[in-house]
Order: sequence, then C-alpha cells, then structure tokens
Amino acid sequence: MSNEETNALGYPKLACSTPVPSDIEVSQQIVKEVGLLPIRDVGRQVGLTDDEVIPWGIAKAKVSLAARENRKDVPDGNYVVVTGINPTPLGEGKSTTTIGLAQALGAILGKKTIACIRQPSQGPTFGIKGGAAGGGYAQVVPMEEFNLHLTGDIHAITAANNLLAAAIDTRMFHEASQSDEALFRRLCPAGKGFSKVQKKRLDKLEIPYEGRSPEDFTAEEKSRFARLDLDPDTITWQRVVDTCDRHLRNVVVGMGAKETVKSKEKEGERVQHNRTSGFDITVASEVMAALALAKSLHDLREKLGAMVVGFSRKGEPVTADDLGCGGALTVLMKDAIMPTLMQTVERTPVLVHAGPFANIATGNSSVVADEIALKLVGPDGFCVTEAGFGADIGMEKFFNIKCRYSGLKPKAAVIVATVRALKMHGGGPPVSAGRPLQKEYTEENIELLRKGCANLQKHIENAKKFGVNVVVAVNKFKTDTDAEIEVVKEAAMAAGAFDAVLSNHWALGGAGAADLASAVDKACKENDESNFKFLYNLDTSIKEKIETISKEIYGADGVDYTELANQQIENYEKNGYGSLPICIAKTQYSFSCDPAAKGVPTGHRITVREIRSCAGAGFVYPICGDIMTIPGLPTRPGFYDVDIDTETGDVIGLF
Amino acid sequence: MSNEETNALGYPKLACSTPVPSDIEVSQQIVKEVGLLPIRDVGRQVGLTDDEVIPWGIAKAKVSLAARENRKDVPDGNYVVVTGINPTPLGEGKSTTTIGLAQALGAILGKKTIACIRQPSQGPTFGIKGGAAGGGYAQVVPMEEFNLHLTGDIHAITAANNLLAAAIDTRMFHEASQSDEALFRRLCPAGKGFSKVQKKRLDKLEIPYEGRSPEDFTAEEKSRFARLDLDPDTITWQRVVDTCDRHLRNVVVGMGAKETVKSKEKEGERVQHNRTSGFDITVASEVMAALALAKSLHDLREKLGAMVVGFSRKGEPVTADDLGCGGALTVLMKDAIMPTLMQTVERTPVLVHAGPFANIATGNSSVVADEIALKLVGPDGFCVTEAGFGADIGMEKFFNIKCRYSGLKPKAAVIVATVRALKMHGGGPPVSAGRPLQKEYTEENIELLRKGCANLQKHIENAKKFGVNVVVAVNKFKTDTDAEIEVVKEAAMAAGAFDAVLSNHWALGGAGAADLASAVDKACKENDESNFKFLYNLDTSIKEKIETISKEIYGADGVDYTELANQQIENYEKNGYGSLPICIAKTQYSFSCDPAAKGVPTGHRITVREIRSCAGAGFVYPICGDIMTIPGLPTRPGFYDVDIDTETGDVIGLF
Repeated sequence: MSNEETNALGYPKLACSTPVPSDIEVSQQIVKEVGLLPIRDVGRQVGLTDDEVIPWGIAKAKVSLAARENRKDVPDGNYVVVTGINPTPLGEGKSTTTIGLAQALGAILGKKTIACIRQPSQGPTFGIKGGAAGGGYAQVVPMEEFNLHLTGDIHAITAANNLLAAAIDTRMFHEASQSDEALFRRLCPAGKGFSKVQKKRLDKLEIPYEGRSPEDFTAEEKSRFARLDLDPDTITWQRVVDTCDRHLRNVVVGMGAKETVKSKEKEGERVQHNRTSGFDITVASEVMAALALAKSLHDLREKLGAMVVGFSRKGEPVTADDLGCGGALTVLMKDAIMPTLMQTVERTPVLVHAGPFANIATGNSSVVADEIALKLVGPDGFCVTEAGFGADIGMEKFFNIKCRYSGLKPKAAVIVATVRALKMHGGGPPVSAGRPLQKEYTEENIELLRKGCANLQKHIENAKKFGVNVVVAVNKFKTDTDAEIEVVKEAAMAAGAFDAVLSNHWALGGAGAADLASAVDKACKENDESNFKFLYNLDTSIKEKIETISKEIYGADGVDYTELANQQIENYEKNGYGSLPICIAKTQYSFSCDPAAKGVPTGHRITVREIRSCAGAGFVYPICGDIMTIPGLPTRPGFYDVDIDTETGDVIGLF
Repeated sequence: MSNEETNALGYPKLACSTPVPSDIEVSQQIVKEVGLLPIRDVGRQVGLTDDEVIPWGIAKAKVSLAARENRKDVPDGNYVVVTGINPTPLGEGKSTTTIGLAQALGAILGKKTIACIRQPSQGPTFGIKGGAAGGGYAQVVPMEEFNLHLTGDIHAITAANNLLAAAIDTRMFHEASQSDEALFRRLCPAGKGFSKVQKKRLDKLEIPYEGRSPEDFTAEEKSRFARLDLDPDTITWQRVVDTCDRHLRNVVVGMGAKETVKSKEKEGERVQHNRTSGFDITVASEVMAALALAKSLHDLREKLGAMVVGFSRKGEPVTADDLGCGGALTVLMKDAIMPTLMQTVERTPVLVHAGPFANIATGNSSVVADEIALKLVGPDGFCVTEAGFGADIGMEKFFNIKCRYSGLKPKAAVIVATVRALKMHGGGPPVSAGRPLQKEYTEENIELLRKGCANLQKHIENAKKFGVNVVVAVNKFKTDTDAEIEVVKEAAMAAGAFDAVLSNHWALGGAGAADLASAVDKACKENDESNFKFLYNLDTSIKEKIETISKEIYGADGVDYTELANQQIENYEKNGYGSLPICIAKTQYSFSCDPAAKGVPTGHRITVREIRSCAGAGFVYPICGDIMTIPGLPTRPGFYDVDIDTETGDVIGLF
C-alpha cells in the first residue's frame, strides 16, 4: 500500500463522506466497511501486553492497573486537558475535539496518543443530549457500544450506591425496633468473631477486641458499637438511577405496611418508618467521584469506607464502614476500577473511565486512566483528557481536585469554542435542543460574535491562572465564515492564548485537526511545568475556598449561604473535613448561577443552597443555585427515535 | 497423563479437600491451583466457534444466538429439569445439584453436557442467602465473577425497566400540564415525520399516516395519538433495584418543588404531581420475564413493546410502545439476550441466563439458553436446566409457561431433597439463617423424617402430572445416616419416582453425582415424550387456571380474590389477556400461602391480593398471600463479611 493510502499508523486513510452522515451511520460505516482493529491489537499499538488487556464485550476491553505498575519507571507523556467555553444546550463539540485531536496526534502526526474520556450517562442518551463518543469523523466506535452500558462501571456504581442507601434505612429501622443488647447480639453473633469491617469500627471507637469475645463486652461498649443513632435530618446520602427521572428527585420512602415501628409517643401504636429522601443520577454519586479520584484498589477501599452518609444525634460522622459496607462496595467496584479500552474511527486507542456531568459531579475521567495513558505513551506521546462542560466548572475541578490528588501536571489546556455559542454569549437568541437555529446563527454576524468572545477570553484568563499554556480550538461548523473565525482567533490571542486554531475534525477526522495537534505539540514543548499552580490552598476554610472559586473563576461579587448550608459547613469543619478541596455543583450554561446570564456576567452572587460531604471521595460538594442533581425527560425524549433492526441487530436512531 | 489422573474429558481429575472449604475458597483454589480453561476453549468443547463466543470479562463470554441458527438441523439433546422440595431458608442445594449433575454427566460419564442456570440477584448476595453458583466442589468458577454483575444482564434490565417507569410519570406530568395541541406538536415536530414506534401506535389507533404530515392531522386524531390519559390507579409498572431495600417497597414519588401542576379545582394554585408507587427487585421485572421467554431478538422487541403499564381512563391498555419506549428498551437489552458462558470446577460448560426468584418471577433460565444448549450437545448429550425454589412454583412455571412457549419437551425431572428439609416438613423446629441447627437436624431422627417425606411425595406426584420421569436426588449432608437416606429413597419410590439416588457432589464433585447421572441418563432413555402434557389449557379463564394450579399443585381447597384482584381480572380478560398462562407469586416455603405450613398442608385456600399484567412477557401475574416483591436486609447482612484483599485483588467472605 502506498503512503498516499495509509496514515501515520499504517492503517488505511479515513475516507470521509460529504455531507457527514449521522453519528451512528458513521460508526456503522466504519465498522462494516473499514473494520475495527481487534481490541488487543489496539492495546498493542501502545505496548499493552495480552495479559494487561481483558476483552469485555463487543470491541471493548478492560485494562489492568498492572499496566501502570509494570511501567513505573517510564517517564510520563505530555498531559493535555480539553475543556470549553460555556456551551449551548446542543454542546459545542468538546468530546468531538478531544477525539479529533487524539486522532490527529496519533494517526496524522504519528505520535503515541491516548484519549481519556468519560463514560456517558444513559440518562441523557435516551433523553435530550447527544452521545458522548464524539461525533462525525471524530468518534469512538462502535458508538452504540460506547453509549450503552459500556463495561458496566456505571451500573456497578448504582449497585454500590444503593446498597449503602438500603443499609442506612434498614439500620435506622432496626435500631428503632431493637434494644442495644439485641442489636449487638445480631451484629456480633457469639462464636463468629468480628469481621474486618467491624474491627475498623472498633478501632475507630477505641474499643479493644483482641482476645475478647462479643459476650465480654460491657453494656456501654455494646451500645457504642451497635447503635449508630443516625439523625435522619443530617443524611445526605441519596439513592441513584442512571435514568432521567424527575419524579425521583424527591420521594418519601418507607411507606409500606411493614415499615412501621413502635410509637415513642403512644404506647401500643405503630408509626410509619418513613423519610423524605431523593434520587440523584448515578454519575453524581460519591462512588463515581471515589472511582475518578482513587489511585489504587487500596485507595478506593479506603475512600468508599470513609464516605460519610450523615451524622449521629451526637454529631459524629457515620461512614459506610460504620454501616459495615465498605468492603462490599469495593468488591462491587473491583472491575470498575479498570479503565475501558476502545478505538477511534482511525483506530487510535481511547481509555474510557469515570463519569460526566461536571455541573453536578467532578465530571472528569479518572486519575488511573490518565496515569496509565501517560505511562503507555511515554515521554514523546500524549494523553489527551477531557474536562466536562464549561472550563469554569470542569477545568477548575480538573486542576484543583483531580491534579491535586494525582500530582500530575498538565502542559496545555485546549479550550473549545464555537462561533455559535459565542454569538449566544454576545446576545443572540436562545438556543435549544429540537428547535431550528435562528438566522443569527446561520448567517455571518460579526457584532454578536465580537461581544460574545468575552466569554472565551474569561475562560482563557482563568486557565492561565493555573500556569498552563492555552490553545483555543475553534470547532468548525459549516455556516462559520472566514471573517468570523478570524474574530475568534484574534480575541483568543488578545486574551493571552498560546495559539488559536480552526479545527474541522468533525468533517475530516484527524486530518481536520492536524493544525490543532501541531499547536498543542508546540504548546507542550514550550510550557514550563514549574509555573503550574492551584487556585487555592487546602488549609483555608471551606467558605474561603468557595469564595476564591466564585470570585476568581465565576467573576462573582460574593457568596451567600442558606442556613442549612451554614450549619453543614460548621459541622464539616468541626469534624475535620474543612481542608478538603471544593467541588461546586452549578449550571454549566453561565459563569453565574443563572443559566440565562450569558457572556461574562458581573455583579452576581453565588448562592450555596446545601453542602454535601464527599469526605470519602475527598471533597465537599456545595450545591449552588437551582441546579438539579437528576435531570428530567422532555415531552419527546430521544428514545422515540431509537430502535433495533431485529434482522441485522443494528441499532438505529441513536443520534 | 494416565487414565487414573484424568477425567472423561481429559482434564486432571478433581482433587477434593476434606473438610470442604468455603465456596469462595474452593473457587479460588481451583482458579489458582488447577487453572481455568480459556473461555473460548470451554466453548470449543461443545463445538462453539470463536465467532460464536464473545469474551466478556474475567472468564466469561457471551454466546451469540447464531450458535442456535447455525445448528438448526442438529437434533436436540436430552432435556432435564432440576427442581426441589420446599426448602428451608438455608437452601437445599438445587443449584449445587444442577452443577454437580452436569459435572457428572460431562466430566465423569463423558457425555456432552451443558448446565443452564440463572444469574443470581445481587440483592440476596449481600443480604442473607448464599450464592447461586452452586457450592463446594459443584460450582461455577470463578464464583465471585458469577455472583457479581456477571455480564451485566440484570443491570440492563434495571435500566430498561426504569426508563419505562420514568417515561410513565413524565408523560402523565406533561399531559397534566399541556394541551392536546401542544403535546402533539412536541411529540411530532413539523418536518420530522413519525418515528418507527410512533407508526406502531398510529397503526394500533388505525390513524392513517402515509403521505400525511403531522400538521394534516385533525384535532381528534391529535388528541387520540398524544393523550394516553393513563389512570394512575391502574398502573402496575413498578421501578426496580437489584438491592434488598425494604424501604422502597412503597414510596411516594414526585414530591419535588418542580413536580407540580396547575390545580384543576383551584385556579391559580399548583398541586404536587405525586403518586404512591413502589420498587420491586429487578429479577421480578417483566423485562426479565420477557428475556427469559423470548425466542429471538425480534420476539423480544415485540414482547417489550407490548408490555402493559396500566390502563387509560377509558379502560384501554397502555403499552411501552404507546409510550415510545419499546425500541429503546430492546436496544438496552440487545446484549442481554445472549447467554453467558462460564465453566464448572471440572471445566464443563455452563450457560447462565435470566433470573432467579421463582416465588416472585418465572424463576427459570431462558428459553434461548436451553435451545442453544440442546443444539450444542446434540442427541446424545444433556441440557440440565434449573427451575427455582420448590417444584410447586419453579417446576410448575417451567412446564406450564416456559415449555409451552419454547415447545421443548423435557425427558426427566430431578427433584432435590435433603434429610434436613424433610425433617422440618415432618415437624422439626424452625430452621433459620445465621442460627445453629437444632439436634433434630444433626442427629438421626427417622420419625420426623418419615413424616416429612410427604412433602417430597407430593412434589413427585405433581411432576408426574406433566408426564415426565422423576428422579429424586438426595443431596447428602455429612450428618445424614444411612438409615435416613434409605427412608427418603423408599418414600420416593413409593410415590412413583423412576429412581431415587444419593448424591454427594458437594464434597466430591462430579464423581459424587455419578450414580445420579446414570439414573438420569436411564430416565431419559426410558421416557416417552408423547406423555408430556400441560396442567391447564390456555383457553380456560384466568380464575379457572389459577384454581387448577392451586388445587392440583398446591393442594388447596380453593381460591379467594380481593376486590382489586377481581377488577383486574375482569379488565385483563376484557382486553384479551385472559388466554395467557399464569405465573403465581407465592412463598417458596410451603405448598400454601403460609410459609409456616410445612409438609403437605390441606384445607388451605389461596388468596390473590392483586394481579399484574405481564402481557408483554406473556402471562398474568397473581400475587398471593403476604409475599413481598422486594426483600429486605437482616440486621447483620452478608455484606459485613465481604471485603477485598487490596494487595492481591482477591474477594473475601463472599459465602
């Protein structure tokens, strides 16, 4: 085969159709006409041995963490984060750019490159948003395998999260109906000894147990061990589903005829053992965050066991390990800790791990996936990782939380911008899914665009605060004019970007992102890692940290707290959680808490409605403004278009 | 290697330790000391090609349905169902016998044999019951891979079931707040045409759409199409979790500040859009039943689309397809329809598919798994399939529902009995998990045992009503005496068993079940398939069918119905669901609805509390007595013992 017909990896060059078919059509075209590389061969490209790759379904595999240990002495590759401006509800192609850039670096420039992206939530897959596999000729394939179940990590998180939830309500129920003595006898049956997780609690309570049998315990020791005495008003642990189900946002649980306990007020009467609670979408679970931030199986075990579900009536934190769950949760997550290997349309490797939704979660792929990727690509290669939604949330969390825990130093940040979104920030009419775009977006409009560039400029300034080189990727839409592209580039350079480059990977694959790849390569080479810094120090108070993020990143005047939030902060600091980093839940559509406030809002304040402890995962989680931790479905959800050809097995209508 | 050292398949003979270690220790010992066969090699034993086997995680693979199509002309193997007497809460080793028998037929007698078992629910895995992988030296390995997640089928069911649940509440919410016109406009946006699932509904409503665009519809057509007008009181669709969570049995959903609609009574006021509902355990979902009974992907698509969630205020059934969901549900289930291949401790093949809980579900493995197995083993081989819990529920459903849909004719039924459970039926003290057995069970007690054998005899008589040969397997416990074993065998033969055999597979693997295997082989050879018959005809009424099962199988005097159940039956029959088979939800601990009524209760009546339609899966589902469709957790759940060795990754304490 001549050089004209093969790319830098020796595979057939990507043949792109015009107009670009739907995402699923592109994916099925690649699978059927070009063919996938066997997944172990994808691994071999970056030196993975067969032992390190466990095939796991159709064109997917798990990568053992041994892949990292086995390359302990290999210097890390170049670490590049891809983030974006505040998007429209249609999304501005951040995942697509991540994949396109990786295709360009790998298949066009011939550099060892791994894209690290997040597993999509199935909620929006059947709801309103597009997939998360990228799009057009910059995608992970087969896209239906990527978008559905993947290798089950999110399902494992649902299972773990909800096991803990069941343990909470059941324990409260049993404590409400049993004496200390009976509780203890059941928890520690004579002759059985103490289990590993029970010893953890005994250690925490400083109750000696070596050489003692349960019967030797004093009444006071039995009570302290067995009665968690959870205060229901302090419980922040929610159940989860990976479905957009607004009716589960707030529910009353425990309404069954058998979920009753003896009344404390009226003798002989029974009262319902119910409680107002709620469901989050699975990707917002602390278990997901623990997975994303864990450095090892051991670290994951510790994180999961340390998760605080609420406080006892005496004000002591109650953890998953206190409920006896930490080991079981880790066992449920033992496969999930391995990233999933897939491939792009140009057969370059992709690691998929952890979850999206930087608005209500950390929204970054995992520390271990990035670490594995950096070792596999080596010093001349690239790990391109994605930080979700707008840079104000996804990138801020990437630097301040993820990089702090991993110790990894990124060399460049790519900020994805589109003419469409910038026009919206400049005052264009609202953009919403399912409705045609107005003419401001389909025709040249320099004035709106110029105004809107302020949003991009603020994100560039924010990124530079962390001391990395910033490359702006203008993700090309076919209606963009040359003059419009120029405006964006100029604005980016004026705000201090290292470079600003047009990229057309959606239509052309890696070839369309070759300039972007060269710019990123140069930005990494010329970056001085010693400039890298965090935005805040951990030893400042929770409120100081929230204020720093709000003022420095969101451009807010200040922060207001509800009474509940104030109480929670006081409680968390009293219990030693004050020195954790901050993961703010906030709308992705604006720097402020108001999704309608486009451009660069000023004079606004951030309202902290409540704060949940994510002490296990390693942060505190303020919920700001009106943000929902589980989305709903529109009147005509995406599932209306999804079906299967029962003859061929082909999925149809999935984006 | 000499013949002394290898079994009939040429593998090293099983070396069994005494005393038998815990299940997980046996499993890990096999994996580490003997080694697993690569999963594709397990498939090759029964002729599976590499194309037909998709590796799916650690020592697991999915088997493509093409494996059945590719062998269309191969005659079926011998079809053997394993069932049991009414068990104690400790379980009597039905899964263990299924696996042990398959090991004996395969590894000892050298006949091509596949065991078909069900995927365990993770709820009880972390709750109270043991695993479902078998036990001792008759297990599927690695047992932790079997018991946790498997290949994600149950998670897929949870996702599908809950997507439909979200669609129901969301649709009611949108219908409560939008005019017919607005609803229709959103459901059928101008220029988008009708999706496949929408055309199904238009066909059902006999509204022509070819050549018409949405705007052409009359107001009446728009209303009929867009307004499902679900009557909330008729909704039988529940949400599911695969967790034992009693507080989800009854919940109120829709309690959030945004889940409000305009009041119909008071202008200007908003009322909560809430509803009392509940969760079932996932394995009780109709989606699981549809998976278990589907013959093909096409059949699954039709079944899922036809699932009835409730009725309109006019009394018309509302289906998943009416809600636009049938295609998406099938897409979520596209991998789940493939059975999972694993191996026993003696390296013989096992297909794992569909779900357990014959008390609250069909509780049988899938039609497609059995069909694939029967083709793979061919006319001289064996498919040993398991029907859950007591034969009164699991076996009855196996014959009357599963075999009716598959058209397959079993040649023999194996009924598993234990001296322990028979003593309980004879009046022995209660047996419960976590408490030591009383002396009646650990010492010889012929009298109790003799009385208890009536339970076994009734099950034998029941099985013979279907016209198959019955082999009783006395599952050996180390405290059983020879005299006791003799009593059971005699009682079995007196009741018309073809044979009754002691089996010691738990301690000895296949070698311990060699006699049982020979008896089963003989029973199949001497069975006359033309004797096979169902217990009831489909064209009798719902009540007649319930009565037939209750009288013939449960030995009840008659059946009582609540008013709700009467209404529901009337409604189902009116809508054409009267000719479906019946899947009764009832305690597994007794022939009656009272779990405490041991032996062979007489004079009892069956109370039908409510009936759910499972019109999609293909049965109606009466819920009898006090049975719960989601279990709870005990004070000290199994998860207390489960942990992970974070150095080696070994799971510990899982049974």
